[in-house]
Order: sequence, then structure tokens, then C-alpha cells
Amino acid sequence: MRTLIKNVDVLTMDQNNTQYKNGCILIEDDKIAFVGDQSQLKIDADYDKMEDGKGKLAMPGLINTHTHVAMTLFRGYANDLPLMEWLAQKIWPMEDRLIEEDIYWLSMLAIAEMIRGGVTTFADMYMFMEETALAVEHSGVRGVLARGLQGPDENSQRRLEENLRLWENWHGKGEGRIHVMVGPHAIYTCEPSYLLEAMELARELNVGIHIHLSETRQEVDNCIEKYGKSPVRHLYDLGLLDGHVLAAHCVHLSQEDLDILKEKDVKVAHCPASNLKLGSGIAPINEMINRGITVSLGTDGAASNNNLNIMKEMALAALVSKGVKEEPTLIPAYEALRMATINGAKALNLEKEVGCLSPGNKADIILLDTHAPHYYPHTDWVSHLVYSGHSSDVHSVWVNGRKLMDNRRLLTIDLDKVYDEVNKIYNRIMGE
Amino acid sequence: MRTLIKNVDVLTMDQNNTQYKNGCILIEDDKIAFVGDQSQLKIDADYDKMEDGKGKLAMPGLINTHTHVAMTLFRGYANDLPLMEWLAQKIWPMEDRLIEEDIYWLSMLAIAEMIRGGVTTFADMYMFMEETALAVEHSGVRGVLARGLQGPDENSQRRLEENLRLWENWHGKGEGRIHVMVGPHAIYTCEPSYLLEAMELARELNVGIHIHLSETRQEVDNCIEKYGKSPVRHLYDLGLLDGHVLAAHCVHLSQEDLDILKEKDVKVAHCPASNLKLGSGIAPINEMINRGITVSLGTDGAASNNNLNIMKEMALAALVSKGVKEEPTLIPAYEALRMATINGAKALNLEKEVGCLSPGNKADIILLDTHAPHYYPHTDWVSHLVYSGHSSDVHSVWVNGRKLMDNRRLLTIDLDKVYDEVNKIYNRIMGE
Repeated sequence: MRTLIKNVDVLTMDQNNTQYKNGCILIEDDKIAFVGDQSQLKIDADYDKMEDGKGKLAMPGLINTHTHVAMTLFRGYANDLPLMEWLAQKIWPMEDRLIEEDIYWLSMLAIAEMIRGGVTTFADMYMFMEETALAVEHSGVRGVLARGLQGPDENSQRRLEENLRLWENWHGKGEGRIHVMVGPHAIYTCEPSYLLEAMELARELNVGIHIHLSETRQEVDNCIEKYGKSPVRHLYDLGLLDGHVLAAHCVHLSQEDLDILKEKDVKVAHCPASNLKLGSGIAPINEMINRGITVSLGTDGAASNNNLNIMKEMALAALVSKGVKEEPTLIPAYEALRMATINGAKALNLEKEVGCLSPGNKADIILLDTHAPHYYPHTDWVSHLVYSGHSSDVHSVWVNGRKLMDNRRLLTIDLDKVYDEVNKIYNRIMGE
Repeated sequence: MRTLIKNVDVLTMDQNNTQYKNGCILIEDDKIAFVGDQSQLKIDADYDKMEDGKGKLAMPGLINTHTHVAMTLFRGYANDLPLMEWLAQKIWPMEDRLIEEDIYWLSMLAIAEMIRGGVTTFADMYMFMEETALAVEHSGVRGVLARGLQGPDENSQRRLEENLRLWENWHGKGEGRIHVMVGPHAIYTCEPSYLLEAMELARELNVGIHIHLSETRQEVDNCIEKYGKSPVRHLYDLGLLDGHVLAAHCVHLSQEDLDILKEKDVKVAHCPASNLKLGSGIAPINEMINRGITVSLGTDGAASNNNLNIMKEMALAALVSKGVKEEPTLIPAYEALRMATINGAKALNLEKEVGCLSPGNKADIILLDTHAPHYYPHTDWVSHLVYSGHSSDVHSVWVNGRKLMDNRRLLTIDLDKVYDEVNKIYNRIMGE
């Protein structure tokens, strides 16, 4: 099956920032077979399907490297509270009421929102993750899933087993779209002995670790009080940073912490909207980037954002550091766009498959409709996307060569059914 | 002519935050005749047209209190530079190439973008403002227009005369949709003698003053060096703050400045995206609000934003203070929504006409489509709008009782014609 997208402006996001005006992309099965000028495509006639990309911009699908998709249930619930109060008093009691099948529909709602916003890959950490895996399989999106782990307590061994089972049942499934990581929640919810168990499991399975790290000042202060060192140093000393680690937030970092993140090549999921909304603070992404640390973008869950919109995170990543430091040259637009694409792929250890439009990569492609007032005049796509783009500009989405959205119509998700099921869950859980 | 909007959830934004579920709104000519529960509408049958608002949310049109609409030409041009360098080296030389009729089309592009984003009123300061007035008249939007004034120099008297002529020709025109203010640009572009002339003109015409104020640290430092006081104190001592003043930015304020703004009831146009993008800094809006200062929202021009999206400004206003101060209870969602609506009306001295949905007010109404994943579950419209809403959720727009957009189709603007004209202007000016 070969699909040719013609007459399309292309941002490849490759190492040389190669862009094409009126270019074309050939999709062959699940891969990109060609990207470039139309004139260079010799096999022009040889395709099964043609898409006219006139007035559109093609780019790699966006990558959301930190979220909790099933938390769509809590969108708009209990705003404007500090992180620990919000978690302990509002979210956790409600989460106890969730049952396994709820997670499927809540994940599907989130996946629908993400596809509509051009997200083709997401990394998640939560519970009942096999339901999220099923939603990933059905919806056609790409997912990197971890069971959230806390312990030790009476259920912590069960959680580790669930992470193992998630790997056994789902790693590599969905035509290779589903990947599994190990998800120790954070240093304040996991004792060192439990972190070591999680690390051991990740080593056995040869997968990465997804963890929350240095999200709030309180987390750092408590860690220093308890262990005499920062959360980053704590994980370093435990050996947990020796493998592939995806660290979400990284808001409060010392110079030593930054050095460690660089030394250990820890991948950062920067979540600006969540960090702002929960009052966690401003992550030092400029310092990270200057050190060569891989910074990607995450939305966090819809409970603390309250959306799953990587275009918004991209704008925030570009804007906030400039304002806070009063330095407009920080985080140029292209850097923010890298965070949302190729850096996301690197953060998830998927840079050989996705994150830029290059022949041989998986065909995770989005088309944006640029025939809208906020894209005129047509000066600079990178700047327009980051500073002026909306998630609703996303017109079409392919993942693994399969079209998931066409002209804003979702092709793999029955939205009305999802709304119905989510409403039922909401009424059951929040109405109690 | 009476139009009834039925089955619609309503955020009135009135003093009591009155909301209706499945309510209705009756528009009679240019005014709102009724807002409330359907059951209370006795004149149910007596209307010429009915709109079904099912699955939609009605609220007052958004108000953009500081922009330079014709600067859409410079969208995406010369990003990531400091304010003064960007103005003096990039923007001003290009502005010299603009001719009068360019302003009409560039304004129309901006107005199209704003209507699509639910903005029904905007306040502008630029040159060739009669062309912008013409675009306001033709498009049906509400505009509060000022001629940008700098001086004294060889053209500064001409500029004052243009502001006078703008008032003579346009104040109260367009069925009362067009208002005129006097627009001294800033304390660093206007000498005290010229500021006094502008003030005199505003007094003669009995209109307000629209001015940039304390936008950058450099502006404040230079003012203290030159005049021995802050820009706010400087204007206060000149008597310029004695009438109605709309002050854009107000980023760098001392405690005394804040006291003066409160004492003189100066209306602030907070422009978070522009302040972030240009590295100007973070305005102390929480301190302003605590003092009871009216804080509204502006996009600034598309050159420094790069969009005219008040929904984005609303999200930034709610998020940034929380993050910078590490205090999630600052600027709750409803406060941000007030900035975008009723406070905008107050800032423009139009609170008796627009800014909330109350009987007798002008019918400036927007409907948002809430049948989208990012609005589920339907918990809290205020939170959803501010933290999860997109400008593209705006489905229909009325200004002065006239429908300007229906199901995202602009009814008063020929967008393709606008794109063509803007492209011609761009090629002429930037291609030179």
C-alpha cells in the first residue's frame, strides 16, 4: 500500500532542518519511502492513493512524553490547589473508585484529544495499564506505557507484577506501536528498596524507567532532609540513572543535578503547563539545553493541565523562559519544535523510528491546514507553528502509515460512544 | 428583528457569576432582550429566527484591549530579539514602506483572526487609522481606535491632527461600534510637552488616552535617569492620569506605581504573550488585582505575539503568575475570564454596553462548541474555557446583534480576497 502526499510544504525536523516547498511524501505500508522535491520522485505514478497537500504543512507527529491519559476523568476537577494537597485530598480518593474498564474509555477520550492535536506518540504512567494498551491498539496511536509503582506497601509487589505482565502481554504489540517501560512513581512515593526492585525489573526486561523527578520545591527539601541529598543525586547514588531514564518535570535542579542529568543522559519530559498550573515552578530548560540534555515535552495528566495539547506546551516552552529571564533570545522557536518532535523520540528511545520525516522511519505524519488568518503572511512556518499555531490546525494524522484522522474526522475512534461511556463513569464516580 | 438562541448553557459574566444550564438568549435588534432559563421566557414564540444552542456554551464576546491590528504584516518576521532592537532595526524601517490602503487589508486580516477567536471588541493604536476604522465598519466588529502619536518632530502635529480627524470622521460611526481615543505611544517616544498636547486633545474630545506604560526594565531605568522618577509617576505628575487612561503592559511597577494606578483608576491592558516573547518580563497582575486595579487582556500586535488570540492570553494570565510565584491559588480561572470580558469592557469605558450578557446590553455574544474531547467530562465551564479551551472552539459570533460568524464561516469578510491583498502587500514591502 503506497500513499503519495503531493504539493505539500514539509518540515522534516531532520538534523539539517531540511524543509521543502511544494514537496511530497511517499508512504509505503508503515514507513516513509520518500520525502523531498516532487521532481526528484521518480516513481511518481506508482502509488495506490494520492492526497493533495496544497495549503498544508507536513511535519512529524508530535510526541507527548509524560501524561496520565486516564486522568481525563479529573479534567476541571479541583483546580488551583498545591500539588500534595491536590493529590492527597482530591485525586487519590477518587482514583480508588476507578475500576479496570473505566481506564479503557478514559484513555480513549485522551487519545482522541491527542490525535486531534497532532500527537502520534505518548508516554504514560498510571494503573490498569493493560486497558490503556488496549485503547492504544484500537485507536492506532503509538504508546509507551508504564505501570505507576509506589511502595513498599501491601500492594507494591502486585504493582510490580502488573508492570511485568504489561510487558509480557503488550510490549511490541499493535504492529510494534506499543512499548513498555517500568514506572516507579517518584522518590517520595517509593522507598529506596522499592526503587531498586523497579530498577531490577527494568534491567531484566531491558526497558527504560519513567519517573517523576524534582517536580516541587517540597519534594527536593524533603529529600534533602530525609536522605541528605537532592532527588537527582539520590537516584544517581542508587544506580537508577545508569540505564534509559525518562524523568518528568525536573523543575528544581541544582548545578550538580544538571551535571548528573547530562552525565547520565537522562531524558527530561518538560511539562510547562502543569508546572505553572500547580505552582510547581519554572524548569531551567535553557540551562538543560545549554548542557546538551535532551528536553522533550509532556502535558502531564488532564487533571493538572487541563488539556493534552502539545502545541500549547510548545508555545509555553518557547515563551516562559524568555519572560522570566527577560531575555528574548532564549529557546528559539525551532528549539521548541524539536522538543515536541525529535527530542520526544529520543526521550522515548524511539529516534530510529519516529520524530523526523526521513525515509525508513515509521510514517507518523501530520498535516496542518495553513489556510487560516493566523498563518498569514506565509513567512516562517517554524515561527508560525510555535507562536501562532493551534492544535485544531491539525487536518490529517497518520501513525505507522495508517490514517487516524482525515479533515478533523477521527477514523478509528467513535467519539460519541466515548463521550457516553465517559459520562457514565463520571456520574458513577463523582456522583457518589 | 428578534433572534432566539435556545438550549444553550450560558456564562453571563455578570457580577454574581450567573450561569444557566439549557438557558436561552433573546437578541432584539442590536441588544440583548432576555437571558435566563427557558421557562422564564414568556415571549417564547415571538421571534424571527431561532438558533439551537445544544452542545454549545454562550458567553460575552472577548475583548482585546491592546493591539496594533495592521501589524499582521510582520507576523513571524524577525523573532527572538529585544524590544528596542526589534522595533528600531526591524519593524520601524518596514513600517515606513506602508501606504494608507495597506492598513485596510492588514486590519481586515487581523479582524478575521479575532472574530474566529471570539473577539468582538478590540482597542488599537497605529497609523492610517481611518483605514482600520473602515475595516471595523465593514467587518461589523467593535473597535476603539487611537492614532499612535510620537513627538515632537516634523510630523507630530500632523499625527495629532490625524487623531482629531479620526474622531471627527469616525467616533460613534458604524452603528455606534466605533470609538476613538487619543494614542500617545509611550513616555520614551513622547516628550512631556507632546504628552500634554495629547492630553489636551483627549480632554477637548472627552475621550480616553491609550498609552504603552512601563513595558520594559529599560524604559523604567531610562525614565528614572531622565526625569528622576518612574514612567507611572512621570505621567501622574504631568496630570495625564487624571482622565480615562488605558495603559498597556505595566510590567515593571514599584509599590508607588501600583498605588498610583489604583488611585487614578488607570485601566491596565495585560499582554502576557508579548511580554514573554519580547523578554519584557512578568507583569505583577496579582498585586494589581489585590489592589482592585482593573486588569484586562491584550494581545499586542501580531509582530510580537504572534497571534491575536485572547483565549491564549487568558490561559497565560491564569498560568504564569502561579508558576513564577509557586502559588497555585493565584489568578483563579474565573478571574482570568473576567479579564477577557467584563474587565475589558471597563478598560475601554464600555461596561454599560458590553462585557457581560445582561438585558439591555449590546448583543456581543459568542457560542463555543463544547462537543469536543477537551471539554469532557462537562465539569466546570470556567475552568475548561481557561485551561483547556481553544480559540477554534468559537462556533458563532454576534456583534451589535449582527451575526459575523456562523459555524466558523465568516459572514462579513471575504477571506480569500483578504489573503490575496495581504500577499500582494507582503511581496511589495518585504520583497524590496
